[in-house]
This record gives sequence, structure tokens and C-alpha cells, in this order.
Amino acid sequence: MRLINYWRSSASYRVRLALALKEVPYTYVAVNLLAKEQHGEAHRARNPIGMVPVLEVEDEPGGPIALTQSVAIAEYLDERWPQHRLFPGDRIARARVRGIVELFNSSIQPLHNLGVLTMIREELKGDEQAWARHWIRNGLAALEKSAAATAGQFLVGDALSFADLCLLPQLYASKRFHVEAAEYPLLARIQAAVTAIPRIAAAHPEVQPDAVK
Amino acid sequence: MRLINYWRSSASYRVRLALALKEVPYTYVAVNLLAKEQHGEAHRARNPIGMVPVLEVEDEPGGPIALTQSVAIAEYLDERWPQHRLFPGDRIARARVRGIVELFNSSIQPLHNLGVLTMIREELKGDEQAWARHWIRNGLAALEKSAAATAGQFLVGDALSFADLCLLPQLYASKRFHVEAAEYPLLARIQAAVTAIPRIAAAHPEVQPDAVK
Repeated sequence: MRLINYWRSSASYRVRLALALKEVPYTYVAVNLLAKEQHGEAHRARNPIGMVPVLEVEDEPGGPIALTQSVAIAEYLDERWPQHRLFPGDRIARARVRGIVELFNSSIQPLHNLGVLTMIREELKGDEQAWARHWIRNGLAALEKSAAATAGQFLVGDALSFADLCLLPQLYASKRFHVEAAEYPLLARIQAAVTAIPRIAAAHPEVQPDAVK
Repeated sequence: MRLINYWRSSASYRVRLALALKEVPYTYVAVNLLAKEQHGEAHRARNPIGMVPVLEVEDEPGGPIALTQSVAIAEYLDERWPQHRLFPGDRIARARVRGIVELFNSSIQPLHNLGVLTMIREELKGDEQAWARHWIRNGLAALEKSAAATAGQFLVGDALSFADLCLLPQLYASKRFHVEAAEYPLLARIQAAVTAIPRIAAAHPEVQPDAVK
């Protein structure tokens, strides 16, 4: 299995966390977003929208496949390697996990990804930092509030889920825009609980082969 | 069951399509986004981020629940009312459906929702129409290309799925920004196939009680 990804991409980090948690081995393939490799022919052939990650799986019955979009990849991984479930068995808990996952994947992260920030800066001559901070705080403040009703040790009850694996990359990315986890005490507590799981450290952006210090 | 929603919201339209397809009855509750009712206290209590739709379900074993995020709601509806499946039984087809769903829900729609366009216009003094068109065309062109490999009668093979139920609202919204389905022949053909399903007509924005002509 090959994960085509970029060390600092939030969506890539989510998938690496899922793979690390499940202890599923894979080959790391880097696409340098700052060098615009995602828009090159080789990567567009894998994923026409030019985004990462892409998961290439060789051993499916019908032959090799390439999967896109981190949430779709996480659901696939959970179905195929059910150890350390990412989506809980209970229907309502599962709906809550997916709701939080989409809060990250739809209502926060897309608004501060590289392509959007480039447009804000270059086309609209706007302050990309202020723009990103606005949407990050909008989303995290809402989550801090709604999580008060759903969280136990983790975002939904006491079981780690993919919602928690989306929280880590979001809080990591937020720091670049000077939004600190400490602004959200409940989220900061959950971040600490997730970070304490030893084997997920291997998924951290700064230990990836293409990481730039 | 109550669907708190807005006639012209893409995410609301997706959920109405799922409910119509499955013939699950519900009460329509309108939140007027143009009047900023989504930011009022009543709606923020339902969903702190102030977005629609919210699905309120009374008859779950643990008592009434409120679900947010259209994709999470669709997965829930499909698990609870499995007639006319929205997510296929085959693992790979399911991953492909979810990948396309996220293309809409993460890589296109969030970039042209009301809050974002308001920021572009009011804070950045930008051209919201050009901004929206850029992201819509970026996403639809990629989908037109990738769907060539996955589509049959619908976006993934010959079975209608939630990917198709996301296509309709996206193409409907796109028209407001002068992006026409005809620019994407494969997507236009699938749009026609979905639109031909008689009972989904009830989900169309312009026949909702709060629709404004």
C-alpha cells in the first residue's frame, strides 16, 4: 500500500494517524505541495483535483485501486482493518463522530488549505492569516461548545474515534495561524489524551521523510 | 422527525433528496439564512456553528437526538432506513461514493457557502461571483475527469448513490454563479438521469415552503 501525501497536509496527517493506530504498514510517497507537484501531470493522473492524500491499494480483488479524500479513506481503512475502530459500533455515536469529522473536513480545513490561502493573498490581496484565524476560531469555538455534551475521555464518549484523529491535525495546523489549543480547554484536554497514545507519534508531520524544519 | 433547513442550502437539499428517495416522512422547519436566523440563539442551541441542516429524531432508544452535517445525516438515514441504499454494499464502490461526496462537501461547496461569500465581499472587497466560479469549476472539472473511470448510469456504476444526490444540489447552486451543467457532458447526463426519478422532485428547493421566487 502506498500513501501519496505531504508531511504538513492536515488530510494526510489524519490518514497517517489512522494507519499508525491500526498498525497497518505502508510506503510513504511525498508530493511537495510548495513546489506545486500536486498540479503536475503525474499527480493529476492519480487525482484530477490535485489534492493529497491518495491511497493506492494493490491487493483488492479487482486489482489495484486509488482512493481519494481523507474521510473516505478512513472509512475504507476501518472496514478493511477493523482493529482499533475509528467509527463506533453504536449508530448514534457513529453519527456524532461523523458530524464532528465533517465539521473539520467541511467547515474548517477547506477554508485554510494552501490553494485557498494562495487565492486570498495573491488574487484578493487579503490577509491570509486573519482569514484562516477567522474560520478556525469559528469552527473550534462551536466544537468546544458541542463537545461539552458528547465528550468523555475523547470527543465522543470514552472511545478514541476518527473525530479525535481529525482534532490533532487541526490543532497542529491552527498553531501556524496563531490559534492555540489552550483557547479551548476541553479540546486541549482531548488533544493531550490522544497525543498520549504512544504509537501515533509516528504519524506526526515533523517526523515524516519530507518534513522541513 | 424534524428537518431544520433552508430551501436554497445545498446541504439541506442533499438531505431532502435522501429523505424523498427513501420515502421517510418529516416535518419541515425553515431557518432563514438571509435573515441570519442561523446565528440566532434558538438555532445556535441546536448547532453551535450556526449551520443547516439539523435533523431532530425523537424516537431513538436513548431519547431525542439532533444530528448535524449533511454527510453524517445521510449515513445515519441509510443505516436506519436501508431501503434505496445511498452507500453501496461493495467496499470499493462505497469508498468511491464517499470520495465523490467529500469532493462536493469539502472541496467545492464550503468555498461558496453564504458565510464565505459574505466575507469575500464585505471584508476583502472581492468579486464573490468570480471566487465561487473558480472553486466550482476547479471541482467539477476534476469530477468530470475522474467520473469517466467510475460512472455507469450514475456517478459510481449503475446504482444511484449519495454521490448523485450531492451532484444535483451542486449543479443547482452552480447556476447562480453562471456555471452551467452543459460545460460537463458526463455530469449533465447523470444529472438528467437523477432528475428523472419521480419522487425526488419533492426535494427541489423551489417547491419548499420557504422558497422565494
